[in-house]
Amino acid sequence: MDVKLVNPFIEGAINVLRTMASVEASPGKPYLKRDQKATGDVSAVIGLTGEASGTISISFPEKSITAIVSRMFGEEITKLDGEVSDAVGEIANMISGQARRELEKMGKLIHGAIPSVIVGKNHEVRHISNHPIIAVPFETEDGGFTIEVCMEN
Amino acid sequence: MDVKLVNPFIEGAINVLRTMASVEASPGKPYLKRDQKATGDVSAVIGLTGEASGTISISFPEKSITAIVSRMFGEEITKLDGEVSDAVGEIANMISGQARRELEKMGKLIHGAIPSVIVGKNHEVRHISNHPIIAVPFETEDGGFTIEVCMEN
Repeated sequence: MDVKLVNPFIEGAINVLRTMASVEASPGKPYLKRDQKATGDVSAVIGLTGEASGTISISFPEKSITAIVSRMFGEEITKLDGEVSDAVGEIANMISGQARRELEKMGKLIHGAIPSVIVGKNHEVRHISNHPIIAVPFETEDGGFTIEVCMEN
Repeated sequence: MDVKLVNPFIEGAINVLRTMASVEASPGKPYLKRDQKATGDVSAVIGLTGEASGTISISFPEKSITAIVSRMFGEEITKLDGEVSDAVGEIANMISGQARRELEKMGKLIHGAIPSVIVGKNHEVRHISNHPIIAVPFETEDGGFTIEVCMEN
């Protein structure tokens, strides 16, 4: 997988969180995910097809997603309920949409499936592929989150 | 969503588990998933694109997936480790592949993304769509599992 295909997802995450929640997200150094477990309390997964088949996920610990969603909604959110799931799905959809528009400009036409959101304390997400998976850690003032991208091309 | 689009996934699940693990899976009555939580200890999610955008998931409690995978591997498996995740991803991929071949015969060309597998005690999977989600409970002699299908068309 060409590492520069990950940049549109990094840019997408920064822009979407800034626009939707006035949150400044700073990306850390992307790394190749091997046996590390990527864990979170809420994750969204979106399947990708087209010129490359793949998947992206975004995983948040409870602390950072409740803070981000509280900013989005303008009220304090303390529980990972259905509204938070919907918001995480929407954040993932917007990041995926923005990244796919950039990928199209780079000549890669990629389609996105509908997001699935997983809620569960400290769950682990694995993408089942022989291709490399790139993980990008982000920091915000309310805590971190991780984006993972796997594209078979 | 046309309910008859779910049948290829039901047939796929029965065939794949019979072939891969010599497990007989009996489907229960499909139901419309509204606010019910579909929970499991291991789930695979596969995004769908093409003539319909959507997602399918298959969620197992620990008891039934360790028994199914033990049969597949021919040795007793007690832990939800990476090998089990890979097996669940492979099961989901085969069900999706078989179902999509049937859907193509019905005139619906659907592409499948690569599977993501979630491991975490009693996690919950939600598909973020305004379209109906059909859940199908299955029983095996080792316990149950659930397939969910959402297609926006």
